[in-house]
Amino acid sequence: MRDYDLVVVGGGPGGYVAAAEAGKRGKSVLLVEEGRLGGVCLNAGCIPTKTLLHTSRLYSQILKGDVKGIAAARPELAWEEALEWKDEVVSTFRKSVESILKTAKVDVLQARARLAGRSAVEAGGEVFSARAIVIAAGSRPSIPPIPGLGDSMAAVNSTELLDRKALPERLAVIGAGVVGLELGAMYSQLGSKVDIVEMLPDVLPFMEPEQAKGLMRSLQPIDFHLDTRVLSVEREGETASALVVAPNRDGAGAVRRIAADTILVATGRRANIEDLGLEGAGVKTARGFILVNERMETSAPRVYAVGDVVGTSLFAHSASRMAEVAVKVLCGDRTAAMRYDAIPWALYTWPEAAGCGLTEAAAIAEGRQVRAVQLPLRTSARFFAEQGKQPGMIKVVADAEQGRILGVHMLGAGCSEMIWGASMAVRLGLTVEEAAETIFPHPTAGEVLRDVLVRLVAGRGN
Amino acid sequence: MRDYDLVVVGGGPGGYVAAAEAGKRGKSVLLVEEGRLGGVCLNAGCIPTKTLLHTSRLYSQILKGDVKGIAAARPELAWEEALEWKDEVVSTFRKSVESILKTAKVDVLQARARLAGRSAVEAGGEVFSARAIVIAAGSRPSIPPIPGLGDSMAAVNSTELLDRKALPERLAVIGAGVVGLELGAMYSQLGSKVDIVEMLPDVLPFMEPEQAKGLMRSLQPIDFHLDTRVLSVEREGETASALVVAPNRDGAGAVRRIAADTILVATGRRANIEDLGLEGAGVKTARGFILVNERMETSAPRVYAVGDVVGTSLFAHSASRMAEVAVKVLCGDRTAAMRYDAIPWALYTWPEAAGCGLTEAAAIAEGRQVRAVQLPLRTSARFFAEQGKQPGMIKVVADAEQGRILGVHMLGAGCSEMIWGASMAVRLGLTVEEAAETIFPHPTAGEVLRDVLVRLVAGRGN
Repeated sequence: MRDYDLVVVGGGPGGYVAAAEAGKRGKSVLLVEEGRLGGVCLNAGCIPTKTLLHTSRLYSQILKGDVKGIAAARPELAWEEALEWKDEVVSTFRKSVESILKTAKVDVLQARARLAGRSAVEAGGEVFSARAIVIAAGSRPSIPPIPGLGDSMAAVNSTELLDRKALPERLAVIGAGVVGLELGAMYSQLGSKVDIVEMLPDVLPFMEPEQAKGLMRSLQPIDFHLDTRVLSVEREGETASALVVAPNRDGAGAVRRIAADTILVATGRRANIEDLGLEGAGVKTARGFILVNERMETSAPRVYAVGDVVGTSLFAHSASRMAEVAVKVLCGDRTAAMRYDAIPWALYTWPEAAGCGLTEAAAIAEGRQVRAVQLPLRTSARFFAEQGKQPGMIKVVADAEQGRILGVHMLGAGCSEMIWGASMAVRLGLTVEEAAETIFPHPTAGEVLRDVLVRLVAGRGN
Repeated sequence: MRDYDLVVVGGGPGGYVAAAEAGKRGKSVLLVEEGRLGGVCLNAGCIPTKTLLHTSRLYSQILKGDVKGIAAARPELAWEEALEWKDEVVSTFRKSVESILKTAKVDVLQARARLAGRSAVEAGGEVFSARAIVIAAGSRPSIPPIPGLGDSMAAVNSTELLDRKALPERLAVIGAGVVGLELGAMYSQLGSKVDIVEMLPDVLPFMEPEQAKGLMRSLQPIDFHLDTRVLSVEREGETASALVVAPNRDGAGAVRRIAADTILVATGRRANIEDLGLEGAGVKTARGFILVNERMETSAPRVYAVGDVVGTSLFAHSASRMAEVAVKVLCGDRTAAMRYDAIPWALYTWPEAAGCGLTEAAAIAEGRQVRAVQLPLRTSARFFAEQGKQPGMIKVVADAEQGRILGVHMLGAGCSEMIWGASMAVRLGLTVEEAAETIFPHPTAGEVLRDVLVRLVAGRGN
């Protein structure tokens, strides 16, 4: 039986970061991954979608003649070439993960892993003893129990859709979360007719209402069907299907049909916690996720869990940070703890959206007294020059008493790359006065953030 | 004689911000501007160039077929439409400046102003008494004393060039500063053959050498002639000219000729300090600029100077910040002071460059012990997916002892909008450990900054 200081179950952005960090600190580490290194994020999620979204965005911009001074140049889409580039990007970064693990002297085993008690992991027919275990088994798409959906030839998940060489003519998306919005936006830009059906009354719940409204306006001609339930999926003609939908409240009276040749199921994810030997190891779960404290410790000593399996924040960058925390803790750092208050998110639609911290509504729901100010991005000459009348905004939520920044929310070109500074400000607990001292270069869209901060400062009589 | 609490001389980003800030605080304010509100930045500098650079960048991207998955779509340049859009952007934001001043109840007078002693300003044939004066008269291009340049029909400044409807075939740029690089890059993207001649051995001295090198590589096919002196400008044929240049050290032996139909003179700026009545008011100058302390006070009581006239930092955003400081001081705030250590800069070429704080060389020259780490942006999957093998990098300079971040320097798409967070970190005096706690969204180019910070932390044994 081979001995390891640490065995990591799963090779995504939680698992490979945990393994590499521990390896760098001199631990002997085994990483067990059933599929491909890099997890969903690298192989079927963030990276492939962002690669293809770049193509679809520029294609659409050129096609629409959105750029002043360039007479419409009928662009020709070479989707197979885009898919090849996507595969090249993914394989380049898979090699990069391999090389990071190699440099950190991590052993990698391609196999399915299962805890054999609290201090051993079984994988590939072998049992490995482990002084510590990090579970980073990730998640998979959850399929809602909609009659007819399982049998529909048209239904695909995002991974399957992204590998298709032919573009859908009519794409129906079930779910207006990150995946549904990004892929809906992408195929709409490429020319597909897109319908997005969402059971909740809003798209992404962590968005400010103004962000969501501006986003939906920008994503026209996508048809959004919010607050709407998919009753069933029916076959229509030879190959196509139809979603049978009804508004949540009106019931069957207002039943409609949405025809589609392709149905993307993007209704959330469920943790991969089955058949991991959790019960035998004494690892408790609740509502489908592994229970952890802020140190990423499970109920079993020396067994940690990070990433989507814990269900607290389903982003790749959250998984990586949890992995860093878990490794610090297992290496004896008693101060390391996962903080959730300043985790940024980004949506790579066009325009982009990004945010971190609390929305105004969430802050109020926590019982806080807040002050919030928002400004449109077109007050920035740079934004206006490049984006014209495209929607865009920045909103800052601060607590009314001390002026601490609780949340920053943005909509507009490039905001995915602007949000990190806001995340730093929220994490540091800066007041609006402190943050407003920052000098922004002129002319940038980011300057609007300073204008928002200055208004918040003025509102406090400073 | 009309009385004002404050008379502001000049309506650019220094002057109009000073006037509006003072107006908001209840002061009676007169702003005197000879030309158009918004100054060089809005009317002939930052805003028009950034507007046109957006067109030229996309035109060039489409033309070169840089985007994977889009088969080359021969774009047609509609330069006159781009110029019209530029004018529309400029006039939109000029109106916005007017409206800001109106809201702040600032009187605006279009006239040339001259100090009439320490507490009065003469303008438009009238004398206004002023309890305080802010001089924000700006700067203009300086024309080097090169034989033949003054007579050359081909020579233009940036304002004249930006208004031309016809594109130059062969553009020679004298000076590799911000203006020379941005306009050189722009016309090169639009198809002009561009030569840039610079007397110094490097482009922008506030750049890291790796930034400058990557930038010049990206700007091919521009021909850079660094460390090179323009000896004279000679007429060549009917309308064209030629720069006669020689390497600084080799002297006349290696004289070459650079043919051009257009010569852009972009060799720096000189402050507008003549005929302002400075001497009579007791405002001291040195080496062509008005002397001020960190409170923007000149040698004359209650007379302040901000922006290009003081020569300490020739950016629009620096001018605006100086204006804020001056107004706070004149309103009685004894703590307000201008800080220069965290002023960001951005270069809107393609790729963009941005930075703030000290370069490694500048920090060493100050006698500091430093540690610097840099990483290429292609280690970010997002950057690689969108930009392929385009140069891009992030470098962080920290002091070796405490780990404080002294400077951050970037090259790559979108970095003009990423630098504000770095500016905040430098201003707050954050250590690399503190900044590395920030969570960056995945996948972004910005994550490379965190990787750099993490390496700096590791190098300190933390």
